[in-house]
Amino acid sequence: MPKGAYEKAGVSIDRGNQAVERIKSMVQRMGVQEIGKFGGFFPLKGGMRNPVLVSSADGVGTKLKIAFLTGVHNTVGRDLVNHCVNDILVYGARPLFFLDYLAAGRVEPDVVGQVVSGVLDGCLGNEMVLLGGETAEMPGFYNASEYDIAGFIVGIVAKADVIDGRSICKGDLLIGLPSSGLHTNGYSLARRIVFDELHLKVSSRVSELELTIGEELLRVHRSYLKAVRPLLREKLLKGMAHITGGGLMENVPRILPVGTSVVIEKTWPLPPLFSFLVQAGRVPPAERYRVFNMGIGMVLVIDPRKLSRVEAALQRMGEGFYLIGQVTENEGGERVRIR
Amino acid sequence: MPKGAYEKAGVSIDRGNQAVERIKSMVQRMGVQEIGKFGGFFPLKGGMRNPVLVSSADGVGTKLKIAFLTGVHNTVGRDLVNHCVNDILVYGARPLFFLDYLAAGRVEPDVVGQVVSGVLDGCLGNEMVLLGGETAEMPGFYNASEYDIAGFIVGIVAKADVIDGRSICKGDLLIGLPSSGLHTNGYSLARRIVFDELHLKVSSRVSELELTIGEELLRVHRSYLKAVRPLLREKLLKGMAHITGGGLMENVPRILPVGTSVVIEKTWPLPPLFSFLVQAGRVPPAERYRVFNMGIGMVLVIDPRKLSRVEAALQRMGEGFYLIGQVTENEGGERVRIR
Repeated sequence: MPKGAYEKAGVSIDRGNQAVERIKSMVQRMGVQEIGKFGGFFPLKGGMRNPVLVSSADGVGTKLKIAFLTGVHNTVGRDLVNHCVNDILVYGARPLFFLDYLAAGRVEPDVVGQVVSGVLDGCLGNEMVLLGGETAEMPGFYNASEYDIAGFIVGIVAKADVIDGRSICKGDLLIGLPSSGLHTNGYSLARRIVFDELHLKVSSRVSELELTIGEELLRVHRSYLKAVRPLLREKLLKGMAHITGGGLMENVPRILPVGTSVVIEKTWPLPPLFSFLVQAGRVPPAERYRVFNMGIGMVLVIDPRKLSRVEAALQRMGEGFYLIGQVTENEGGERVRIR
Repeated sequence: MPKGAYEKAGVSIDRGNQAVERIKSMVQRMGVQEIGKFGGFFPLKGGMRNPVLVSSADGVGTKLKIAFLTGVHNTVGRDLVNHCVNDILVYGARPLFFLDYLAAGRVEPDVVGQVVSGVLDGCLGNEMVLLGGETAEMPGFYNASEYDIAGFIVGIVAKADVIDGRSICKGDLLIGLPSSGLHTNGYSLARRIVFDELHLKVSSRVSELELTIGEELLRVHRSYLKAVRPLLREKLLKGMAHITGGGLMENVPRILPVGTSVVIEKTWPLPPLFSFLVQAGRVPPAERYRVFNMGIGMVLVIDPRKLSRVEAALQRMGEGFYLIGQVTENEGGERVRIR
């Protein structure tokens, strides 16, 4: 076998190194941690009493297919980071650092550079360090020019400030914060409806929607960090649920204490993308709130006596919100009733 | 669209939940952190001066294809964990917790259960907590019954105890610790040689090798934690390099200070798997030490005056080792010369 045997087996260390160089230069420009060593360092500051690390792993799911179809690769990294930020934010944790994993059939330095630039944007937007990552070339695993990404976040919160929903009780109120689109859930169904059933393209326009189908489906998963931070500082929250896979139906119960349920009233305006999808796809009501976020990306649970302070704080942050329901006693049956 | 629209789009929340239940029951039996929330908690103990978190993300690469071919899914999780442990161990860090990401075309609770049982074994073997993870069903991304996994580790070390190779100088010695096989690198080339060129099967036997081809290729990536821990405690190490992708040629220079190079003598017995692969695949000498670990999975750099203490400590741990080279002045050219 001649020199370059590994290249022939479909793996290029040179191409990999090129991608790493590109990432390095971006990372250096942004003043974050050195890349290219075995691991990344994060010195812990002292001063917090009983610090608790909170960590989460996530992916972007089949939303990546929209990036492949549109050729837009610089937003999925923000989806990834923001998703992870929200997952630890629900416990009151502040993000410290992030690592990413990117695997592709063939590492195209250009595409990898765009993906990682999105990850860096996401980290900067959440005041967090990109501490490291892995870029793996895996021929035979992914279709040509496709990839998968995963992200890992570590945040911190003082033990006394952990928000775990334990104090939630009957009469508490549910505030919904608007999502920016599908976020990172329901894409397999959305793609089936839009591409397989309606035979639309990413460049297609439908009258109900502001942007093209591709742009609508690529809207970046929001981070709720900035909107929620003042509420955390003022200790106004009893619980928070990030509405990801499983929708309102499965995510809200994750923080409810035994013996409680919630009733959610459809008080918020359904964003056009969701009405378009559920109508075009004839998605039955029972499934809508399980597969899609239906316009609510984060649910806050608060004591009703704190409502006016919560409203004032959200308004100060320029954050939209809806009073969407309340906590009731659990009388058996579904723990989330939507009416 | 009838009820079950999401299932028809190729995603089953029920199947996903089954997999989660299986993982949960394993995790509970092993007494580690609760799974099924948005993130995992890790309370930090006090008492360490200037603690530094060290973190790394990694995958298993195309070694997974061997798991697919053999149907053995309960070892790749150990590869993943041990790889990550070694990546932070090289800085002197002790593992704290781990998270995994598993993505599959179709989540088979049985296969996912086996993969995660390997991850748990790995975590237990390294005295580390499995803090959480994500299992993503991504139809259209992976071939039927295939999957990818990524892992993420967080460890800790006191700032004063960080090992970064800075003090390495001319005359220092290189100790090689044996690998257990290919570890997680060079699989694309190994598979090409074994399956495409030699047309062997995973069940094939060749006279040079003890086990079947599949078993040889699946040998678990070792963790060096237990072997190295006493050396860390006694402050006997100046630097450590985990020999992963890029082999001895690219991994040793990662810890060398400017102005230094190394000369490596092929003093250790080449394990049969490597001689078989490089001969059968006619892999040129220049490439062998870049693609494969060639029998050395970890390199320790030590002061020659500490050699006898290092040898004694490794012998006490029952660890095999080889004196494989020394640090020289860099006179230009390759920073690693192998002769």
